[in-house]
Amino acid sequence: MHPRFSYDLKYCSISRALDVVGEKWTLLLIREALYGVRRFDDFARALNCGRAVLSARLKMLTDEGVLEGREYAVPGQRKRVEYHLTEKGRELFLAVQALSQWSERWMPPPEGPVARVIDRQSGRPVTVVMTSDPGVQRLTMNDIDILPGPGAKLLPQTEKKSGAVKGVRKVREE
Amino acid sequence: MHPRFSYDLKYCSISRALDVVGEKWTLLLIREALYGVRRFDDFARALNCGRAVLSARLKMLTDEGVLEGREYAVPGQRKRVEYHLTEKGRELFLAVQALSQWSERWMPPPEGPVARVIDRQSGRPVTVVMTSDPGVQRLTMNDIDILPGPGAKLLPQTEKKSGAVKGVRKVREE
Repeated sequence: MHPRFSYDLKYCSISRALDVVGEKWTLLLIREALYGVRRFDDFARALNCGRAVLSARLKMLTDEGVLEGREYAVPGQRKRVEYHLTEKGRELFLAVQALSQWSERWMPPPEGPVARVIDRQSGRPVTVVMTSDPGVQRLTMNDIDILPGPGAKLLPQTEKKSGAVKGVRKVREE
Repeated sequence: MHPRFSYDLKYCSISRALDVVGEKWTLLLIREALYGVRRFDDFARALNCGRAVLSARLKMLTDEGVLEGREYAVPGQRKRVEYHLTEKGRELFLAVQALSQWSERWMPPPEGPVARVIDRQSGRPVTVVMTSDPGVQRLTMNDIDILPGPGAKLLPQTEKKSGAVKGVRKVREE
């Protein structure tokens, strides 16, 4: 018997992470939140999914403490909820960035990466690494900027507008 | 309009990674491969899933170059195929480990992590970090050992046996 079967993996940390973020939709929703999307209608448009499904996913991630709801009011309308990443949610960026880095290396996009991540202070590119150096420099989402990469393309309807957006997203403290 | 919608994300690296590994089953299958599971029957048992579903997943990951099939023969039986992680597949460890680290921090298992990852050379614990230090020490799967952690539990049937397995898995070069 393979030694893997000797162990009880009920509390396996990989499995427990996947219980929360282990399907494509959830990680794409988190990607949108990392890009700064906050509102229900924006999530629905970005993910192109039904409202009931989106509601269930936002609720699950809120229950798990990955997102938190904050009320906001548009004048003349009823109060609504925006979804913000919590610290727990923001720390998922490391895993999302590791996946992104992997696909850029092994399935390079034809015109280069759509986004590039830099250290806000030094301007140097950011990478995810595995290390045992106890003194390693550790960056968090608050230390970085996500900028358009060489493969970034504005969609046609926005190219016509003046004052095109400069950054895919400038990450700021919540 | 939120600036996120100005951009064409068809080649978004996160999305392209998720096309290959973006659902729970796929990442769990890769976890098993990282633990050293190679054979169809072992994957089926580990993942507790139907053979047709497993076949389709193994084929997808083989087509994507994450796994490669290698023939092996048990005396007196027909040739079979073992599934080994390719270099592309082994590099997914970084993302899997980032997810694992996240869940250990935010959803700590009651008796500590099931597995711990150490630098084989120094014996120091391994972490996944985001950094812009160009001289950072970068470990690969070939530099590490995965050992049972404080929360590791042998399953009852194997506890009775003598000569219990010492390591969940000692990672070795393929």
